[in-house]
Amino acid sequence: MAVYIEPKILKGFRDFLPDAEIVRRNLTEKIENVFCSFGFVPIDTPAMEYAEILLGKGGGETEKQIYRFKDNGERDVALRFDLTVPFARFIALHRAELTFPFKRYHIGKVWRGENTQRGRFREFTQCDFDIIGSDSPSSDFEILLLIQTTLLNLGLEITIHVNHRGLFNKFLQHINQSEKLVDVLRTVDKLSKVGEEETKKSLESIAGEENAKKILEFIGAKGNFTEVLNRITELSGGSSPESDRLLTLYEFMKDANAGNAPNSEPFVLDPSITRGLDYYTGVVFETFLNDLPDIGSICSGGRYDNLCALYSKEKETVSGVGSSIGLDRLLAALETVGKLPAAKKPQIAIACVNAEKSGEYQALAQSFRKDGINCEVFLDAGAGGEKQPVKQFVLAEKKGIRYVIIPGDEPLKDKMTLRNLSTRENREVSVEEAKKTLK
Amino acid sequence: MAVYIEPKILKGFRDFLPDAEIVRRNLTEKIENVFCSFGFVPIDTPAMEYAEILLGKGGGETEKQIYRFKDNGERDVALRFDLTVPFARFIALHRAELTFPFKRYHIGKVWRGENTQRGRFREFTQCDFDIIGSDSPSSDFEILLLIQTTLLNLGLEITIHVNHRGLFNKFLQHINQSEKLVDVLRTVDKLSKVGEEETKKSLESIAGEENAKKILEFIGAKGNFTEVLNRITELSGGSSPESDRLLTLYEFMKDANAGNAPNSEPFVLDPSITRGLDYYTGVVFETFLNDLPDIGSICSGGRYDNLCALYSKEKETVSGVGSSIGLDRLLAALETVGKLPAAKKPQIAIACVNAEKSGEYQALAQSFRKDGINCEVFLDAGAGGEKQPVKQFVLAEKKGIRYVIIPGDEPLKDKMTLRNLSTRENREVSVEEAKKTLK
Repeated sequence: MAVYIEPKILKGFRDFLPDAEIVRRNLTEKIENVFCSFGFVPIDTPAMEYAEILLGKGGGETEKQIYRFKDNGERDVALRFDLTVPFARFIALHRAELTFPFKRYHIGKVWRGENTQRGRFREFTQCDFDIIGSDSPSSDFEILLLIQTTLLNLGLEITIHVNHRGLFNKFLQHINQSEKLVDVLRTVDKLSKVGEEETKKSLESIAGEENAKKILEFIGAKGNFTEVLNRITELSGGSSPESDRLLTLYEFMKDANAGNAPNSEPFVLDPSITRGLDYYTGVVFETFLNDLPDIGSICSGGRYDNLCALYSKEKETVSGVGSSIGLDRLLAALETVGKLPAAKKPQIAIACVNAEKSGEYQALAQSFRKDGINCEVFLDAGAGGEKQPVKQFVLAEKKGIRYVIIPGDEPLKDKMTLRNLSTRENREVSVEEAKKTLK
Repeated sequence: MAVYIEPKILKGFRDFLPDAEIVRRNLTEKIENVFCSFGFVPIDTPAMEYAEILLGKGGGETEKQIYRFKDNGERDVALRFDLTVPFARFIALHRAELTFPFKRYHIGKVWRGENTQRGRFREFTQCDFDIIGSDSPSSDFEILLLIQTTLLNLGLEITIHVNHRGLFNKFLQHINQSEKLVDVLRTVDKLSKVGEEETKKSLESIAGEENAKKILEFIGAKGNFTEVLNRITELSGGSSPESDRLLTLYEFMKDANAGNAPNSEPFVLDPSITRGLDYYTGVVFETFLNDLPDIGSICSGGRYDNLCALYSKEKETVSGVGSSIGLDRLLAALETVGKLPAAKKPQIAIACVNAEKSGEYQALAQSFRKDGINCEVFLDAGAGGEKQPVKQFVLAEKKGIRYVIIPGDEPLKDKMTLRNLSTRENREVSVEEAKKTLK
């Protein structure tokens, strides 16, 4: 009869205990508040979809990592492995119901059967935000400003490295290396990992010595935004719609940041940012923490031509610009730099002096709660006799509570003892006086 | 080359468009705020667990409905179908890390391959809250008060039907029908569905005519809390720890509600509530909306003896009391009674008069956002020439925005036109005047 099942969880999956979960929720709330202040609205999609939808053209890493199975109706289904593919399907399906430009965010869990040895999780939270249905540079800029505002609001100083994928293409065209695009991108994308020497060798074998030199000159252009822009414009054969767009973005940055950002150069033009083989076609960007650049980009993205080509027969394309924050990496970063949003705790607890008065203790608590003061009620007087208040102080301290109330005989009418747990001082106060202290 | 995949979603699964998702988030936030005000803390667990853990002793409906499959490592895994089983596993695993009594809530998605023809969803959100590690009646009461406070805070008047499973057992013992417990419970639980006549017949065939009469007398006891309590105490052979507990709860209800609840009788003693074959052993309850009793209980629960017997070898049991709100049913109810929490919308939008000034428009918007005013920036002047402000007013109305700002030549310095979209009035105001109006 006595069945026993070992209480274990799957590798790569996590329980969140209260302290961790409260921090995660605070972080999400802070991020969402900024998104809302920009007029971005939330959506949600199912955790599970037809495998065909999620795999799209299929192949590659995704296929190996996806959780895919047959449901009870023999349908070929899978768990979402990112929020981008479901969003493309969502737009194709609900296009007629939405107002464009559509500014949306989506915070949700995704699942990948990643190799956990690399410290990766198999269940993690993504936070995506996009503007769909606007080609205007003002939308590229709004995404950049939203990233900056969101991260500044978390107390983080950042630098956003911006580039234009189209300008890189134009440059390769100018040096007659267009057909090497894929190989060159793959190589350039690994620059920060393998170093300049290794990249040079690879590029030489792909495009020849002279072209490799030009490519390295392009991606290595240094200086302030306009200096780099002038250099890469020149290297790509003179000004073009792509270089003009970067110039417009630069003007917007100057206009919008006039005096209101603590960091005077939050945006740099970095021609080595290409976002590899991703589906981006326009502006691309990666975001680095000034205090912790080595953890890599915590928020990347760019502009794409047609989000839902795969799911739509319509001729009119849906272009957009968007970005994604990895919440787990952001949390780790905030912890490292000591800027985790503090866990909100109940401010006070009412000690249980006499368990028979629990109804009256709750009435007292309700009166605090109505005034916006979070108030826990301790449920048992315990077996400790006269020692019990001390035990309850210990419990309150463990829970991170600031004050304990020791109620009187008539909790709502009598004066109560208000104990400050950090100073260990007791004060006799009325209900109104207690509220004044706690507000 | 032109691959096309039809953008469809699985039956029983849902996309949430912004208006619906905003309402869901507002609802969740309102519920969480009340939970926090009582000192309840959130946790989270993985969507996926070992199938063995989730199925426990296995069998029955659960086994048929669960999404179960082999992962890429050939592990037998499944998606959680409720939040109770993962919580039991969580407590068994983390017991040493937690402070008891442990007051937690958990809001999360669960998955069941239900028959969608009955209007059920295969992906839905549960909201569970429990107090673990306290046997005290004050914890039973706190759960009841928390339900009442949460639903009142949503503008709903409710009646909570309370009973004690142990007292029902005691009564069956008193009439020598203990061995029929399972059959009797199964029958009583269907009372509201099949009606009194049918129930009577079933009970007669189970327990004989005379006992059936007594059972119907017990479960049909009517009157105020004390009248019903006296009657069922008598029918179960006189006062017992179980009847004393109900009396204590009644005292707590009187004490805590003294003058602070709009509904003077939110709690009724209803001996027909047994929660069927659930694992409850003590107090049980169901919650009905006064304006919409027919939709059934929107929040049910009770006290259980040992939450994690299955996952723990320890002798010390973990008893508790808890409850669960079905958010989908609650949302449907709120919609029916016209009390859906309103969607928060951005208050203002800045019209795009000249796209080249987008940086300055964002600077103006940032100044509003810093003062807590949500402000969207429109991204394109559009091709409409001088007609464009009108088009932008239409866009703003579609988005539910209240005011549109038509900025001046120097957006941060010049006066702007503030258009009230409901009255269609325009006013020339400075930035400071606009803020005063909008705050």
